[in-house]
Amino acid sequence: MSLKGRDIVWIGDLSEEEILTVLDEAQRMVPIARGEIKSKIMDGRILASLFFEPSTRTRLSFETAMHRLGGDVITIAGQEGSSLIKGETLADTIRMAESYSDIIAIRHPKEGAARLASTFSKKPIINGGDGAGQHPTQTLLDLFTIRNNTGGFEGIQVAIAGDLKYGRTVHSLSLALGRFGAEMTFVAPDRIQMPEYIREELDKMGARYHTRDDVKKVIPDSDVLYMTRIQKERFPEEEEYMKVAGAFKIDAEALEGARKNLIVMHPLPRVDEIHHSVDRTPHAKYFEQAFNGVPVRMALLKLILEVAE
Amino acid sequence: MSLKGRDIVWIGDLSEEEILTVLDEAQRMVPIARGEIKSKIMDGRILASLFFEPSTRTRLSFETAMHRLGGDVITIAGQEGSSLIKGETLADTIRMAESYSDIIAIRHPKEGAARLASTFSKKPIINGGDGAGQHPTQTLLDLFTIRNNTGGFEGIQVAIAGDLKYGRTVHSLSLALGRFGAEMTFVAPDRIQMPEYIREELDKMGARYHTRDDVKKVIPDSDVLYMTRIQKERFPEEEEYMKVAGAFKIDAEALEGARKNLIVMHPLPRVDEIHHSVDRTPHAKYFEQAFNGVPVRMALLKLILEVAE
Amino acid sequence: MSLKGRDIVWIGDLSEEEILTVLDEAQRMVPIARGEIKSKIMDGRILASLFFEPSTRTRLSFETAMHRLGGDVITIAGQEGSSLIKGETLADTIRMAESYSDIIAIRHPKEGAARLASTFSKKPIINGGDGAGQHPTQTLLDLFTIRNNTGGFEGIQVAIAGDLKYGRTVHSLSLALGRFGAEMTFVAPDRIQMPEYIREELDKMGARYHTRDDVKKVIPDSDVLYMTRIQKERFPEEEEYMKVAGAFKIDAEALEGARKNLIVMHPLPRVDEIHHSVDRTPHAKYFEQAFNGVPVRMALLKLILEVAE
Repeated sequence: MSLKGRDIVWIGDLSEEEILTVLDEAQRMVPIARGEIKSKIMDGRILASLFFEPSTRTRLSFETAMHRLGGDVITIAGQEGSSLIKGETLADTIRMAESYSDIIAIRHPKEGAARLASTFSKKPIINGGDGAGQHPTQTLLDLFTIRNNTGGFEGIQVAIAGDLKYGRTVHSLSLALGRFGAEMTFVAPDRIQMPEYIREELDKMGARYHTRDDVKKVIPDSDVLYMTRIQKERFPEEEEYMKVAGAFKIDAEALEGARKNLIVMHPLPRVDEIHHSVDRTPHAKYFEQAFNGVPVRMALLKLILEVAE
Repeated sequence: MSLKGRDIVWIGDLSEEEILTVLDEAQRMVPIARGEIKSKIMDGRILASLFFEPSTRTRLSFETAMHRLGGDVITIAGQEGSSLIKGETLADTIRMAESYSDIIAIRHPKEGAARLASTFSKKPIINGGDGAGQHPTQTLLDLFTIRNNTGGFEGIQVAIAGDLKYGRTVHSLSLALGRFGAEMTFVAPDRIQMPEYIREELDKMGARYHTRDDVKKVIPDSDVLYMTRIQKERFPEEEEYMKVAGAFKIDAEALEGARKNLIVMHPLPRVDEIHHSVDRTPHAKYFEQAFNGVPVRMALLKLILEVAE
Repeated sequence: MSLKGRDIVWIGDLSEEEILTVLDEAQRMVPIARGEIKSKIMDGRILASLFFEPSTRTRLSFETAMHRLGGDVITIAGQEGSSLIKGETLADTIRMAESYSDIIAIRHPKEGAARLASTFSKKPIINGGDGAGQHPTQTLLDLFTIRNNTGGFEGIQVAIAGDLKYGRTVHSLSLALGRFGAEMTFVAPDRIQMPEYIREELDKMGARYHTRDDVKKVIPDSDVLYMTRIQKERFPEEEEYMKVAGAFKIDAEALEGARKNLIVMHPLPRVDEIHHSVDRTPHAKYFEQAFNGVPVRMALLKLILEVAE
């Protein structure tokens, strides 16, 4: 098994064995990501960090990953990224970037952009999120955070809450967790529950899952609580949104009946889904999760460019 | 005395001894800042350069400081910085940045932002200016420039001109110069003279100072002339502004009666306070002052991260 | 002959011998530009990449050039660059940049800005394009691409098509090709043909050239077809533009009668001058041309900073 030269456009590009290889490699990367150990394995290599829409957390963690490994970065971000979209074709931009770099991380507002990019690029493409589409490095860092805290996936209870209909990253996460044997509870208002086609996929692989509509009620039986944002805009009437919103916000008090080892996760940025009082509890793992973006992306860079240590 | 792990939010975070330590270290950094000697003491380390409002001079001098020491930089600037302010909380942004870096330089439009950031960050924070608030690295590079040109602070005559009411950097500079025994002349229209609470502080430490309202008249007796911009907006009527503005602009001719060693400083950018004819005189030190931002910030990076050479 | 410390503001700053020296050096840089060989000759050096207007291709190739040689980069781009233009004078911005770096690449919307910058900077300035003015590194990479594919300039047939009146880069290219003995055909609508003063220059040096008004007709007899964009705005009436536009667009079919070794070039970004069907033909060299920006700029950095290998 080798990831050398591979594009990572969606999590399905990786077999279960390959995912575990990435997580294992990421584990070894942690002290380098923390700056405790130095690495030069990317010396002389260049990451093109192409952000056609803002995603500061993803961009900076990719760039830190490259720097911690001794590599360099060229960046398109902000205004420049947005105007490039309106200018030349993605194909031409990608061909430029691939000739100036060794590997490309791309974030794009249009679903399918990363896949399209990969067809034009001879250099490996890592999808940093494409609109309502895929975000495989998010799924990998989510899995990494869960495994690091629970010890494994088999049989753990994972509650996934928030906008489960439009939030594609929770689709990828659910499918991955299903493959690894976790039991899931999808917590969302009916209007934005996990779509039928994802449930069918889960059924096919024999994954166990339940649906609920109040976060607070699933807390006591969960090992992992994965919160996401519910956007007001998903509801035709503000009134309807107000009716359900409260059931998808948690604070320290709401966690009082939780298992001692419950971990609370969130892809960030958060708005008001998780009250700041949770930050001080031992359950809060969303900042650790954000940090984990670095070792996970380091692992991908290393495995894809297959550089010797 | 050690600055290891310290936040530098305002100049008061540093004792007089510590300030002198920074200036001495900065002196040793000059040939590295000029690129004449190479250093790798920051090899593998990352500076997060977070500019939530534009300040190109400060940003680039921080980034050059890190690069000249062999370190890497991740940057938030421009549009991205401004929109982050509207998005997630500063606390969450800072927690992200600290997990991707070893030290953070922050520039923010809101007074107090850097102090707030320091309470959330386990990594050291250097304030690169917070709105109408503090800008300690500016004070340090000002002190460095003065000492390098005058040989010391005790008894030198420093005229500080321009907007002394709202310009907080001149407050910090005045307090620091007072502590080190310089004699100051505050030159400003009454409306924007040095505030009472700063004068009281200076009185308490026994510092000597005077107030005047015409730059040209103080030039003959000064060793240092520190110019700042007077903003039209500080005056209720344009007419009133026009009446005083002329007294706060200098050109080469105005310097004819100056002491041979008078140095003219300005934090830059300038508008029309200093005519370009001054640039060609030996008095002009504002470009040297801008350069000094590099060795001073290098010194801080080294002392705070306490890396061995 | 030495380029040490030289400003490169327009191609006329370089003698023919110097141009060939740059092209030869660029040739040696290719494997480093590709990442196949590592170089550290710029270790500890800093390029200030000042983009006061967007030009992603030029900016990223300068930055990659510096990184591939082991150097660092500080960047002004996007919104920050545009607002700097409105703020302080170019002179003050340049003096800042020169004190934070070893060499400056500048892109500016105003013609003459790079020349002006060079008068203020003690550090070498490389012009990355100034408005309707000069863009010498584009000319160098164009020459490099042509020579690499044709083996030399003497007697080759170069068709240059598109907006030849306002496109100053084609003026520089034509004059350079004329000096090196290429025979040129200028293909443009009358309204935007090669200006008289350029033709006079070519006449003076005894260069051979022709004028035509339909790209397709010159293809069979060309070794190089250099396409540029025709802007609708150059024509008083859209109708007039529509009448001629078709004669300045090519697709794979249009190349069927071409010489086997014809190369098609374009400075990019393209709009619809070159149909994507051309990309798959062996004639398409515009992506290679974009890549060549890296070794050519590496060569300039090395020769100007005259660093030992």
